[in-house]
Amino acid sequence: MEGILLSVTIKDIAAAVGLSTASVSRILNGRGRYSAASAKRVQAAAAELGYFKNRSAADLASPQQRRTIGVINYLAATNANDQVIQGILAEARERDVEVTIMYAQRDNQASITRVVKSMIERQVFAVLFLSVRPDQTVVDTLRQARIYPQEVASASDLNISSVSSDDFQIGYQATDLLLRRGYRRIAFVGADPQKDIIGRYRYAGYTAALQAYDVTPAKEWLFIGDGQYSYHSGLAAVTDFSEHPQTAVDAVFATSDDTALGIVNGLYDLGRPFSPGSLAVIGVDGSSTCTRARPQLSSMTQSFDLIGRTAVAEAVHAGDQVDQIKRIEIPFTIEERQTTPTKK
Amino acid sequence: MEGILLSVTIKDIAAAVGLSTASVSRILNGRGRYSAASAKRVQAAAAELGYFKNRSAADLASPQQRRTIGVINYLAATNANDQVIQGILAEARERDVEVTIMYAQRDNQASITRVVKSMIERQVFAVLFLSVRPDQTVVDTLRQARIYPQEVASASDLNISSVSSDDFQIGYQATDLLLRRGYRRIAFVGADPQKDIIGRYRYAGYTAALQAYDVTPAKEWLFIGDGQYSYHSGLAAVTDFSEHPQTAVDAVFATSDDTALGIVNGLYDLGRPFSPGSLAVIGVDGSSTCTRARPQLSSMTQSFDLIGRTAVAEAVHAGDQVDQIKRIEIPFTIEERQTTPTKK
Repeated sequence: MEGILLSVTIKDIAAAVGLSTASVSRILNGRGRYSAASAKRVQAAAAELGYFKNRSAADLASPQQRRTIGVINYLAATNANDQVIQGILAEARERDVEVTIMYAQRDNQASITRVVKSMIERQVFAVLFLSVRPDQTVVDTLRQARIYPQEVASASDLNISSVSSDDFQIGYQATDLLLRRGYRRIAFVGADPQKDIIGRYRYAGYTAALQAYDVTPAKEWLFIGDGQYSYHSGLAAVTDFSEHPQTAVDAVFATSDDTALGIVNGLYDLGRPFSPGSLAVIGVDGSSTCTRARPQLSSMTQSFDLIGRTAVAEAVHAGDQVDQIKRIEIPFTIEERQTTPTKK
Repeated sequence: MEGILLSVTIKDIAAAVGLSTASVSRILNGRGRYSAASAKRVQAAAAELGYFKNRSAADLASPQQRRTIGVINYLAATNANDQVIQGILAEARERDVEVTIMYAQRDNQASITRVVKSMIERQVFAVLFLSVRPDQTVVDTLRQARIYPQEVASASDLNISSVSSDDFQIGYQATDLLLRRGYRRIAFVGADPQKDIIGRYRYAGYTAALQAYDVTPAKEWLFIGDGQYSYHSGLAAVTDFSEHPQTAVDAVFATSDDTALGIVNGLYDLGRPFSPGSLAVIGVDGSSTCTRARPQLSSMTQSFDLIGRTAVAEAVHAGDQVDQIKRIEIPFTIEERQTTPTKK
């Protein structure tokens, strides 16, 4: 899919269907006279070849004239994303810009490409990627179309601006809290330190904090699960730890609140509900999951509202500087609730 | 706000700023020559008067030519809405129509009116209201603009189509289940039977089921709370029941899963966590809250995916028949989990 984005022309379609470029242009622009049969063939060819209305630089409104920000959200969106979106909408309202939200599958470039095409056609001036990871081709395509690309609530290795939390510090501070509460055999659950950048930074923070206490993590303390920060990974980790008692972890740094909930529910399902003295656990996000769970979950609380607001402010400031790359880190807080008591 | 929608003309703006209608038209359409100072005044007046580009019938594309459905969602959207949206997106993809989602405050007509204006400008062919209640003026305005209005996942007293569950049967079947499990003193928690139509139907079903068992509900068994089907209402109900032991309810029909979670968490917070023999509870929705809670919540499970899909199918079928009123009820299922054991 990547190669053809922005590259299919009216000429290509004309060649494919055996009509003149003038006829194809009339059909695609819905102007002048043409037969229904030709229109059908042209539209089929356009769809098949991946054509979309290609705006030349001259044809395109300047970023200052465009007033809409596009947000690409993840299909199975989390609670955390809802908070970011509320921040985006609030800031957009104050700055009098409009917001269009569309959904894509997380790591599916074909799905992301389709949505990005639609965003370009809508003449947005910026596209915010929310838990959706574009590849470099998509990023470059947006810049060609004079649209500012920005990752929100996550950062990647791409050459693209981002607004997110400092994930090394999230890992460090969470682990440090558990150490200060007396725990030493601390597991890392739910993210893959090899495969994604957030997991990598949080894991680096986790090991650095352990090192400061002269603790060397055993390899059994790392439980990746599906590597998607999921509830399911938390549940599965508890089963795994209970089946390998020699692992004997006494606390868990869960890489999301969902994963932390999985830990607490896993204990319940084993018939040993959480109590001070059982596995301590701290999550990440500060979503409503924390206060709706019993026990209530301690969490590294990200400022999602501020992340959303800052993303909009940065996109507006960037204006025509679509090539600018700025990585902004937003402070987080530590919220202790019922799952990090002092070790008995 | 209602009166002015669609009614402010270029003439009104011209009169307000003391320019000719031709000048105002040039400025609003961004064509021809005008000074920046005039443009500023015109735009300020247009914003103040609530002007938006008013399309005459001739100017408007027919519903068949328009390919976008607008969805107006509630700002603090629930998990249930996410499921409806996934159904909407899936059906839209299959039918090759686009979806634009915007957010409004639940019962705030000014907020809803702003979003509806924007939907009209985007030339959508239908607007789906998701947990957002338009007033009759908004509904009429959409029809004038040849846009099909439809309530989704809720129904109201307005003259508007809807796709939702049969709320009388939800109330009846939930209460009947608790009766069959041996409970008799069954509370109704979280919705207001006087103030909203869903609450009214569920309450009617609840009383009808009790009547079939010759049970007359005491007035203390009705706990409305904030009447918003909220988690908080469930928490507050438990406190209320514990402070009035003479009420002595033995089960709760919670009008949402969130409210049911509030009941279970309220028991935990009183130091008497749920156990067979404590208060039984059944919720409504079948959201992921049910399986993420411990104990897992029994629930009247709505078919949100099918509701979303049907809403799109109906909007596409309606086509030009924007005045059509069709109320569709989608079947639900009863999912028993851990909170409705047989009474001890």
